[in-house]
Amino acid sequence: MEEAKQVRDLKPLFHPKSIAIIGASERGFYPTKVLQNLLRYKYGGKIFPINPYFKNVIGLKCYPRVLDVPVDIDLGVVAVPARIVPSIVEESGKKGLKALILISSGFREIGLEGAKLERQIIETCKKYNVRLLGPNCLGVVDTHSPLNASFAPSTPVKGNIAFVSQSGALGTAMLDWTLDQRIGLSKFISLGNKADLDETDVIQALADDANSKVILLYIEGVTRGDKFVDAALKVTKKKPVIAIKSGITSAGSRAVSSHTGSMAGSDLAFNLAFNKAGIIRVNTAEELFDIAKSFSTQPVPKGPNVAIITNAGGPGVLATDACEKFGLKLAPMSVKTVKRLRQNLPPSSGFFNPIDIIGDADANRYKFAIENVLESEDVQNALIILTPQAVTEVEATAKILIHLKAKFPDKPLVASFMGGNTVSEGIKMLEAANIPNYKFPERAIQSLALLTTYAIHQNTNPSGDMQVFKVDRETVKSLFEKVRKQKRLVLSAFEANEIANAYGIAAPSIKLATTADQAVAIAESVGYPVVMKVESPNILHKTDIGGVKLNLNSPSDVKSSFYEIIGRAHTFYPNTSILGVNVQRMVPSGREVIIGMTRDITFGPLLMFGLGGIYVNFLKDVSFRLAELTNSDAMNMIKETKAYTLLRGIRGEPSSDINSVLDTLLRVSQLVTDFSEINEMDINPLMVYEKGCMAIDVKITIKP
Amino acid sequence: MEEAKQVRDLKPLFHPKSIAIIGASERGFYPTKVLQNLLRYKYGGKIFPINPYFKNVIGLKCYPRVLDVPVDIDLGVVAVPARIVPSIVEESGKKGLKALILISSGFREIGLEGAKLERQIIETCKKYNVRLLGPNCLGVVDTHSPLNASFAPSTPVKGNIAFVSQSGALGTAMLDWTLDQRIGLSKFISLGNKADLDETDVIQALADDANSKVILLYIEGVTRGDKFVDAALKVTKKKPVIAIKSGITSAGSRAVSSHTGSMAGSDLAFNLAFNKAGIIRVNTAEELFDIAKSFSTQPVPKGPNVAIITNAGGPGVLATDACEKFGLKLAPMSVKTVKRLRQNLPPSSGFFNPIDIIGDADANRYKFAIENVLESEDVQNALIILTPQAVTEVEATAKILIHLKAKFPDKPLVASFMGGNTVSEGIKMLEAANIPNYKFPERAIQSLALLTTYAIHQNTNPSGDMQVFKVDRETVKSLFEKVRKQKRLVLSAFEANEIANAYGIAAPSIKLATTADQAVAIAESVGYPVVMKVESPNILHKTDIGGVKLNLNSPSDVKSSFYEIIGRAHTFYPNTSILGVNVQRMVPSGREVIIGMTRDITFGPLLMFGLGGIYVNFLKDVSFRLAELTNSDAMNMIKETKAYTLLRGIRGEPSSDINSVLDTLLRVSQLVTDFSEINEMDINPLMVYEKGCMAIDVKITIKP
Repeated sequence: MEEAKQVRDLKPLFHPKSIAIIGASERGFYPTKVLQNLLRYKYGGKIFPINPYFKNVIGLKCYPRVLDVPVDIDLGVVAVPARIVPSIVEESGKKGLKALILISSGFREIGLEGAKLERQIIETCKKYNVRLLGPNCLGVVDTHSPLNASFAPSTPVKGNIAFVSQSGALGTAMLDWTLDQRIGLSKFISLGNKADLDETDVIQALADDANSKVILLYIEGVTRGDKFVDAALKVTKKKPVIAIKSGITSAGSRAVSSHTGSMAGSDLAFNLAFNKAGIIRVNTAEELFDIAKSFSTQPVPKGPNVAIITNAGGPGVLATDACEKFGLKLAPMSVKTVKRLRQNLPPSSGFFNPIDIIGDADANRYKFAIENVLESEDVQNALIILTPQAVTEVEATAKILIHLKAKFPDKPLVASFMGGNTVSEGIKMLEAANIPNYKFPERAIQSLALLTTYAIHQNTNPSGDMQVFKVDRETVKSLFEKVRKQKRLVLSAFEANEIANAYGIAAPSIKLATTADQAVAIAESVGYPVVMKVESPNILHKTDIGGVKLNLNSPSDVKSSFYEIIGRAHTFYPNTSILGVNVQRMVPSGREVIIGMTRDITFGPLLMFGLGGIYVNFLKDVSFRLAELTNSDAMNMIKETKAYTLLRGIRGEPSSDINSVLDTLLRVSQLVTDFSEINEMDINPLMVYEKGCMAIDVKITIKP
Repeated sequence: MEEAKQVRDLKPLFHPKSIAIIGASERGFYPTKVLQNLLRYKYGGKIFPINPYFKNVIGLKCYPRVLDVPVDIDLGVVAVPARIVPSIVEESGKKGLKALILISSGFREIGLEGAKLERQIIETCKKYNVRLLGPNCLGVVDTHSPLNASFAPSTPVKGNIAFVSQSGALGTAMLDWTLDQRIGLSKFISLGNKADLDETDVIQALADDANSKVILLYIEGVTRGDKFVDAALKVTKKKPVIAIKSGITSAGSRAVSSHTGSMAGSDLAFNLAFNKAGIIRVNTAEELFDIAKSFSTQPVPKGPNVAIITNAGGPGVLATDACEKFGLKLAPMSVKTVKRLRQNLPPSSGFFNPIDIIGDADANRYKFAIENVLESEDVQNALIILTPQAVTEVEATAKILIHLKAKFPDKPLVASFMGGNTVSEGIKMLEAANIPNYKFPERAIQSLALLTTYAIHQNTNPSGDMQVFKVDRETVKSLFEKVRKQKRLVLSAFEANEIANAYGIAAPSIKLATTADQAVAIAESVGYPVVMKVESPNILHKTDIGGVKLNLNSPSDVKSSFYEIIGRAHTFYPNTSILGVNVQRMVPSGREVIIGMTRDITFGPLLMFGLGGIYVNFLKDVSFRLAELTNSDAMNMIKETKAYTLLRGIRGEPSSDINSVLDTLLRVSQLVTDFSEINEMDINPLMVYEKGCMAIDVKITIKP
């Protein structure tokens, strides 16, 4: 409760009644720039320069310390050398400041010493309940307050796009660029080191900000993975979040001893997290704002059908190709619409989508075509392409679009007036009337497609079908305790099967033989044929060393296999403890799938499903989701793979029990969520039959 | 010889000594605009307006017909109604004009009637040896001649990029855009309907044009597929060709009864053709010119290593991600380089690639870093990123780059000065000095990556290892004649195997049984176990209907299988002729791969290799190339698939005879090149053993 309140209340950061500029001077670059920005940008509250060496700064009375200011202060902007920061934060806390923007650098980013200083500051902030942005950040701009508490050289124009950037320099460049592109912002927030306030806090605050219609994020990492996903899911139900996450090539920090671990790329977890949270991920800084242009001005579409109206065939084809690429549908033209279009368009026009009103189209022809097409219920989005040809009326056509946009406010309408000078005046008119223009039709289609993606996200309830199974947690708990006591990280085959059974996952019973005679005795008791596998905590891929023998039918086979397995294990792992050989009844063969989990350092359990067996790494037919899985998550995971086609039965083969696979996947999800000590888990293969399935080989490792 | 000469000699089109404007008037839009463009653009030759209704047009003496002009004319620009065009072309031929630009529309693009007119014109052109551009085109601009024989509203500035566009409207828009972006062109050529001159002719001419350093193509289709690939391969050895091909979603026009046909997407042939020809394919109109900016100004790099020098971490990370995405390598920094950098850069700089010279970098620091990095032999390309921060010296840094570019002329150097107004002056300076600037670092990296791709293409000799096998063409030829006489399109299993054998591809001997007793007799003679398959020209996927029986070991098995197969075939194909049941000795199982061919309507035989067997459509692990294959083509095809991993033997399995697969692939390539009547061909499976391979099931269909 306390935390929830604290998280959301970022008002002192964006709408402070008074601000202290700590370190203010007329010489230091950063504090001077912040002061100038505050004044120029017409901040309406009180400003108190703080600096023991000055009486006045830029005509304002200067106080030695915040504690000397006779009235309350909401926000402090701190730009002093790192070593003085701890005392400044302490004084700010004492004075009752509610928020601090820490511009100073020299903290975590410079190494261990700085990190220590940063931790010290955060503890002081917590003690006094002060929220802190930074350190090592550019500050904050709120174009509606108005407030420019940053040292950014360019100040954005007013708009409804909130831009949050972890990188200050990228932020600066993008602010400058938004001016050039006439893109308006509601807020700009530079996150810096995220010592206290991070992306999760900020997007939660922005969700409630009436001035922000879209949230843009540039991040290099996420501080609190699980909190972020949960929070973002709530935010994206209210308004779109578009993000660029850089650093996709950085090596992951997950364990990779399992199949699942080795197949989950380092960037995968971010994709899964963004998908789960409904965040739209783009790949370049350019796309971030380009897409935002549509999200900040257009309504959420009712469906994926787009009409393309163009005065040139070529760009129409490019737009059509883009529809295929980005998953938009060309709206079908009804007989009625085509009939009406034929009445007034030249006979050589294209009457089906894309509607080509040909090169000599004037503004009136655009009006006629667009109006008739938008009236159709089959059309839910529109892209208007204009190339500057002989009789093209650029500005008059822009006016038509503006008029029709007002007539059809519920249908996203974007333009692609192509060219340079000839079309620039028309583009300005469009943009002033909230019709985004794209110089090239492909990006326009991409924007519409992402609007549709967002519409689908807003209308689905992802947590609707979460299932909780009745399981035996105690058995698993005590088993892990035993393993930890023995200082092991890898569970034995029995232990892994026992855990599977405790969570309702069928696994064959396994017995350990330490002598050849014992192996024969077990085989005689469970019945032939049997499978034998080496048991050792350090040998994970047993097949590779010849440590697995299948389909053994006689005591002599079992005996010789025992010696061979032990011999091979000692040859390949001469200094490893070999516990013996597991003997189990051989189960009938079925479709082999894999279910696995690896734990991501940021986002937690990452579940995998796919084609199993010994070729799993070779075929790489797998799908992933973050835990916890809902029924539909799990079903979608299965359906994404080719294994699904196989399970349904191809070319006349009988179908396998897909529901039992679904059930197993959900139970694994519950297991790895319940026990955060599980580091990695593979069931490979899970043998699937016409009825039921069986976990043949279960591997579990736990965290140190 | 005659054709070759004709193809290349496009001088009258770009450098005519005299031009007739046929249809010239002061009222008609198109001819007036062409005349105006010719005059304004200071065309140096003689201009003759032609129109029987005028004595003078814009102050120039006007002649009734070209035949009335007293001197020779090189080029005619025709803008008269379509129905008059044939007589104009006839007269132009008689007069001895060498080339015509046919601006008029109303030909193939409006339907059958127009197509007829177009054919008529082309015949006349051939009769008189006149080359024709269009119809339905915008015309031609040559900025070096200078010549603007087009009705384009904007005239490009002089440069070294040749731009060829099939779409006139897209051409217009892009010309306007190049002005806005200060991109210079050497030539602009609007292809229109390509009745005579097509992309193949034009790129051949441009290859020899000293004023054009790069060729850009916007095409919606290719007229003569095989000629285009051969010609483009020669052109791209001289200079880069960058192309955008739209219409990727249009349905293909290939047969799809084979596995190969069904797996080759409609856009695949263009990708293969462009790859084979060394053409760089981009996906959007924006990319076309963005990439061209680097190709037109930068040298061909010596290798893929790039150094990124930046004053901000974030964009450096974005650029690094882009390197991974586009296949460029971050240049390793030698101990020597790092040591030198440390001497003068602030301690918190990034000394390894990307080189982060941090936010307070002035121009001198850029100079120091870039100079030291470019001196390293490990660095073959450089990207300089600048974000406008507090002390950033934009123009001074631009000057540094210009200076260093001159010092290291052999290393591609591109910039990403990010932002708007703050950096625009610096960007202008860079561009004037032939250093391309990209607003976002990703595109800069993509450009460098494509330069590297081009460098590799220039240095490889693709036709170096073409192999020709000694084969029995006569057998194949007479077999096809027989099949054609019988008006069949599908070859029987014997026929297909006979063809395979004639080309040195091992296939088992097959005998047809028309009674159960005959089947037993064949089985007894070839030896058990045997395989039996239904034989019918209309049943292509025999397994699906239960028309294949494997591993039959006794006369009674053979007998009952015969009845079952015939019964099933009649049930599933009640009205189809069933010729009987094939009997062959069962061959041992091995690795199953597929080799196939489908014929593309534009580019001819399209070869496929991949994982075979009954799951071929399910796993879709296949690679493609256009015929004819060189040894290295074929080897690369094999290596691109997962089947290759399998053939090499994974997890301790023995390796299969990859050379025998290569041999088979090359022989199939030769077969389908030798016989253009083969429409589709599948060998599935080709069974591969530790030594040798065997074509188990060969399917061949021929063209109607």
